[in-house]
Amino acid sequence: MKLIIAIVQDQDVPSLVDDLTENDFRVTKLASTGGFLKSGNTTLLLGVEEDQVDEVIKIIETNCKTREITTSLLTVSMPGDTYVPYPLEVRVGGATIFILDVERFVKI
Amino acid sequence: MKLIIAIVQDQDVPSLVDDLTENDFRVTKLASTGGFLKSGNTTLLLGVEEDQVDEVIKIIETNCKTREITTSLLTVSMPGDTYVPYPLEVRVGGATIFILDVERFVKI
Amino acid sequence: MKLIIAIVQDQDVPSLVDDLTENDFRVTKLASTGGFLKSGNTTLLLGVEEDQVDEVIKIIETNCKTREITTSLLTVSMPGDTYVPYPLEVRVGGATIFILDVERFVKI
Ligand code: NI
Ligand code: NI
Ligand code: NI
Repeated sequence: MKLIIAIVQDQDVPSLVDDLTENDFRVTKLASTGGFLKSGNTTLLLGVEEDQVDEVIKIIETNCKTREITTSLLTVSMPGDTYVPYPLEVRVGGATIFILDVERFVKI
Repeated sequence: MKLIIAIVQDQDVPSLVDDLTENDFRVTKLASTGGFLKSGNTTLLLGVEEDQVDEVIKIIETNCKTREITTSLLTVSMPGDTYVPYPLEVRVGGATIFILDVERFVKI
Repeated sequence: MKLIIAIVQDQDVPSLVDDLTENDFRVTKLASTGGFLKSGNTTLLLGVEEDQVDEVIKIIETNCKTREITTSLLTVSMPGDTYVPYPLEVRVGGATIFILDVERFVKI
């Protein structure tokens, strides 16, 4: 058995966990911050059989691939206190995945 | 040395941590959600010697074994806006335990 | 590759994460409680190359070494409802570090 520790962006968690659950994978979510990914992130734990590791990585890839999105969150203040939304390209997504060997697995 | 990662239900944590502490095991608690267990859960980390693994598993088993409890949390609404508590059998408890090998352990 | 799981005291996290980031290490922080260290603690995850493990341990040691500090948090109540701050020596710091082997590492 293998333990997959995946650090993903918060915004990708709902669709990712949906897809994993649909494929009968059980996920435990830990709230995490900083580090590997700049914005808010979540650390996921999954215990899977060795021959399922690639399937899980593929599901993570599909849901968390790095992409550029155009956001208008940035606003620019203009004279007369007018705020103008300014289109901004940001990279979102990404995942950091560690696969560890599990010596023993117990289900109670 | 071994690292035990145990995912247990929130309600079983106080008695479990009590028993582990009484037996001189140190536990680190991480708040977690979803996945292996349906209700709120906690992920515990314990670093133990190889010959203590079975003792820890036994303590987890004692405190987290799956059992059916009768709850009256479900209420059924009756005509005239009367709410009647309805006995409901639910399964609680359970634990998912991963034992990993620790290559090196440092205490500062 | 190695996964370093370090449990450190909350108060040591800002300077520790600063030093790790300055040395190009990426850290993921998980909020944790109890266990290895008495006060509030944080569990850090770092994925590093085998030849970087000692450098990381040294940085943790520098920022988290156990030391005695004198605090006046303890107040002693005197007759007439006067509270007198009482100097108290407490041990702070410390870290518990697990180094695990990573079988496979994937960056998306
Ligand atoms: Ni295995
Ligand atoms: Ni060992
Ligand atoms: Ni390696």
